[in-house]
Amino acid sequence: MTEADFITALRALPLHPGALGLADDAARLEGLVLTSDTIVEGVHFLADDPAGDVAWKLVAVNMSDLAAKGARPEAVMLSFPLGDDDWDRAFLIGLHTALEAFDCPLLGGDTVSLPLDAPRVMTLTAIGKAGAHSPTRSGARAGDVLYVTGTIGDAGAGLAIARALASGTAQIGAGPGALLNAYRRPMPRLTEGVALAPLVHAMMDVSDGLLIDAARMAAASGLAVCVDLAAVPLSIAYTDHAGGGIDARLAAATAGDDYQLLFAAADGIDLPVPATRIGQFSTGSGITLRDAGDTVPLPANLGFQHRV
Amino acid sequence: MTEADFITALRALPLHPGALGLADDAARLEGLVLTSDTIVEGVHFLADDPAGDVAWKLVAVNMSDLAAKGARPEAVMLSFPLGDDDWDRAFLIGLHTALEAFDCPLLGGDTVSLPLDAPRVMTLTAIGKAGAHSPTRSGARAGDVLYVTGTIGDAGAGLAIARALASGTAQIGAGPGALLNAYRRPMPRLTEGVALAPLVHAMMDVSDGLLIDAARMAAASGLAVCVDLAAVPLSIAYTDHAGGGIDARLAAATAGDDYQLLFAAADGIDLPVPATRIGQFSTGSGITLRDAGDTVPLPANLGFQHRV
Repeated sequence: MTEADFITALRALPLHPGALGLADDAARLEGLVLTSDTIVEGVHFLADDPAGDVAWKLVAVNMSDLAAKGARPEAVMLSFPLGDDDWDRAFLIGLHTALEAFDCPLLGGDTVSLPLDAPRVMTLTAIGKAGAHSPTRSGARAGDVLYVTGTIGDAGAGLAIARALASGTAQIGAGPGALLNAYRRPMPRLTEGVALAPLVHAMMDVSDGLLIDAARMAAASGLAVCVDLAAVPLSIAYTDHAGGGIDARLAAATAGDDYQLLFAAADGIDLPVPATRIGQFSTGSGITLRDAGDTVPLPANLGFQHRV
Repeated sequence: MTEADFITALRALPLHPGALGLADDAARLEGLVLTSDTIVEGVHFLADDPAGDVAWKLVAVNMSDLAAKGARPEAVMLSFPLGDDDWDRAFLIGLHTALEAFDCPLLGGDTVSLPLDAPRVMTLTAIGKAGAHSPTRSGARAGDVLYVTGTIGDAGAGLAIARALASGTAQIGAGPGALLNAYRRPMPRLTEGVALAPLVHAMMDVSDGLLIDAARMAAASGLAVCVDLAAVPLSIAYTDHAGGGIDARLAAATAGDDYQLLFAAADGIDLPVPATRIGQFSTGSGITLRDAGDTVPLPANLGFQHRV
């Protein structure tokens, strides 16, 4: 059963109205926004990733879901598997740093033991306070401009560097530290989310890849979207590492873990935070790519598909 | 690091006021009660346990935490690892049954892939509406009577039967079905929790064993507690299977998974639901055992200690 099949099956269960049909990244309950993300060793993080970075990332990915709803962090619940002391203590230090950075206290949770040699699995449920406007991914309108905050592709390049380091095909120091840092310590756009929420028609965070997430926003909104690859914002660290050609831009736009905000807004409005115009919605369905003036065929994979 | 050490370390993190110092089974946030429980294949359930029963249990253990706070179920968030189709479909059927039985809809969650052959790990976060009174485990007073709902030990005996079935040392049909059912489909005491919450001084659910949980309530309340083993309520199915002697009563009082409500209330009050008087609190600390008139030495293990 694919994840999409499983979610379809979940929709046959009794759903809370705040579940929004399980079509959004976060749920609503009495003025709160709730989201839950699980990360798995060997799937969402590498066994060699520093434990403190894993803790940071677990918090950050959940904060990113709150950011996309324009919510302010209120508290988190942690489910944690006890393992070896050194790893667990380093995890706690990273968790402390992250909770302080996002001004989000711990509310509760659970600790468990795992069978010997089982990969670590940990879940964080984050609770935020919704503002007056809580955008979904489904509200884009024909003619809206597609924007993204920050730069795209840094974390994907950082993951490739981390994998090379772990497999011994690269040495420590290979690749710019900024890219590795973007993978290991992503910075959710909480302030931007609060500022953008009242103005946007649709918003989500870029977790699985810019193209797949743009396609999901278009599908949820019943529209087509055209993305201009030439406009996708790349960092200097990224272009220094990967170049700025079409292949590098496609790699950036299909890599995951960016945790930037992707949003649809009316053409011509003043934005309260920096963001880059990368495409436009129109009637129809599906995603098309352009590179400045030229049409570009869609790559086989638009991003990671094993995550919500 | 033991679980107790880890929870002590968590207390050094920024805590939400509703975390109650991580000393209670559930957290409070704006009129809501929140609890999160994780279950692990090979630790909290057996690989051979039917998937539908695992789903039921995952929901039931969280509902039991809500029951202990006198909360009414509002919604659940599920983190689920996709695995083989048959297991996942059977899980969904059990989940559907449980959500309907407890009148508790799904609010959201996350699905993940696990590495090959990794044990299943799944987390449920349950959200309930708190009533006017939301008891903790720390409010017992000297002179209070210790009560428990239902019968104790059935699920522990059912687990032993399930293990024997799984290891091939017993055949299907060994042991009464009622005991196996108590292990596989525990029934949280939601109605009783709502009725008792305004009257009790302290309340918790019995998840790790009657004696260890009674000792925890006494410790949290800064009191001593004496439990009368002769008064521990046993089912006919249990005594038919294990006998009613002191060993059988000790086994029942130290087995886990009962999911009954354990509470402290003033001596002499009328209870709104059936419950059995099994002990009394006094000034001091620690737990002592009696068997009718005789003092009984404490067993080496008062219950499971690997769970919150």
